Amino acid sequence: MIYDIIIVGCGPAGMTAAIYALRANKKVLILEGEAIGGKIASSPLVENYPGFKQISGNELVDNLYEQVEELGGVIEFDKAIEIKNGEIKKVIGEINVYEGYSVILALGSKYRTLKIENEEDYIGNGVSFCVVCDGAFYRGEDVAVIGGGNSAIINAISLADMCNKVYVIQNLDYLTCEEALKKELKNKNNVEIIYNAKVTKYLGDETLEGLVINDERQIDVKGIFLSIGQDPDIDCVKELINLDERNYVLVNEHCATSEDGIFAAGDCIHKNIRQLTTAMNDGTIAALSAIDYLKKINK
Amino acid sequence: MIYDIIIVGCGPAGMTAAIYALRANKKVLILEGEAIGGKIASSPLVENYPGFKQISGNELVDNLYEQVEELGGVIEFDKAIEIKNGEIKKVIGEINVYEGYSVILALGSKYRTLKIENEEDYIGNGVSFCVVCDGAFYRGEDVAVIGGGNSAIINAISLADMCNKVYVIQNLDYLTCEEALKKELKNKNNVEIIYNAKVTKYLGDETLEGLVINDERQIDVKGIFLSIGQDPDIDCVKELINLDERNYVLVNEHCATSEDGIFAAGDCIHKNIRQLTTAMNDGTIAALSAIDYLKKINK
Repeated sequence: MIYDIIIVGCGPAGMTAAIYALRANKKVLILEGEAIGGKIASSPLVENYPGFKQISGNELVDNLYEQVEELGGVIEFDKAIEIKNGEIKKVIGEINVYEGYSVILALGSKYRTLKIENEEDYIGNGVSFCVVCDGAFYRGEDVAVIGGGNSAIINAISLADMCNKVYVIQNLDYLTCEEALKKELKNKNNVEIIYNAKVTKYLGDETLEGLVINDERQIDVKGIFLSIGQDPDIDCVKELINLDERNYVLVNEHCATSEDGIFAAGDCIHKNIRQLTTAMNDGTIAALSAIDYLKKINK
Repeated sequence: MIYDIIIVGCGPAGMTAAIYALRANKKVLILEGEAIGGKIASSPLVENYPGFKQISGNELVDNLYEQVEELGGVIEFDKAIEIKNGEIKKVIGEINVYEGYSVILALGSKYRTLKIENEEDYIGNGVSFCVVCDGAFYRGEDVAVIGGGNSAIINAISLADMCNKVYVIQNLDYLTCEEALKKELKNKNNVEIIYNAKVTKYLGDETLEGLVINDERQIDVKGIFLSIGQDPDIDCVKELINLDERNYVLVNEHCATSEDGIFAAGDCIHKNIRQLTTAMNDGTIAALSAIDYLKKINK
């Protein structure tokens, strides 16, 4: 069986692409190597997805999954290891090889974590990654930002406007962000920067209550924002596709990659803003571009 | 009162921008000159918005509205007539003048219609505008596309793949679309092009059953797709902002317009794909860019 469109990755971008492709009557396969939903599945509460005042990430993912299933989408649990371009594209998984006339890469990305004890238990439970998404949950509270690069300091500045106190915890003896951001941060009188500090422990029984740095100093905070970067999950295409210097997939305005008939969407692509709404935008565009491509090759 | 962000237009793009701006603790005013929700409010059934298997346009708009209200958004019913840029931007309405440090234009667009008897009753009730949105509702049925330009013929080709028969009804004696599209259309054996034809009547009691062309020939169809263009609602900024040749607002990747501190989102901007998902993408980006701008001017 040769599919019209193989979508690699079953997060918000991939499932949105599937909805558009299936409604255009295309034969669609979705491959997922881990769990359905991507990073959003571990968000306990989403308040910035238009249409739902409040919804858990899991529930939103369930909704998307049911929508894809109802439209006849086929999901295979197999991890894509390599993708080969050609008139018929081959997606080589750990279990099987899949063939399609076009491919949409919705590979997602993974936030970097501190790799300390019980970290998984605190993620979504006090430990967050996205201030735009979760900052509003900590209005008036004390919080910590881990990191000292641009995104960490942008996060700290935003949090300073709505939280009681913001700790910036940086493992070096200086910040690596731009000078302009340093200046802006200095204008906030509720920010304390702690240099040469490593978080060695999270504190709190059921929900986060604080952290320990360098095994000695305890800091009480209700929320921690890990801002030490994320990595796109692009191993299966790293030899095939043009990537930016941080390994994100380069696409044009049609979400087309450097390879004919291969499109990309969501957190694996090079872009400025990574939100549910922007992932679904890409998924829509990638699907409609793939459909266009299929027309051009008479499929 | 000087708002942080004035959002002009309360459709999906405007309300998404409001959600992001309000969650960042900004003082937000939304101005709406007609009815809340924009064009999607008149869609009886939406199946391609991720998260809802099926939802009416009205219900989705209600959800968005409640979400904005819950976050403290203020909506004023007043039609913006003119916008003046400056350190403080002035939005001049029919009733009042509103001041803000930044503005997001979410002005929307209007589909062109045939202006024939009872047309309003049939819109959303057999008469549609968007094949990507509504084509799937007419699988196996006979349908008509009105128009002969690129978008009309792209619509006809897509519909030919899923419908029983597609009539293309064009008022000239030739199609105005590109040659490549003409060729593609000719390859479909279930398409009939009717030239020199004007739709003079819609038929059907409660739902559409057909149409009459040139007051004489009756054609039985379950769906009609009006593909005669749309016009962005940009009168209030036509002297201020750089527009494309069809009057859509030109923006960069940050949804910034040619005027400092004025951003734009949704169907009023120059872009290829106009869907709920893409409008919400723009709304997100415009809001985050406006927030960035406010930081830069220390507001």
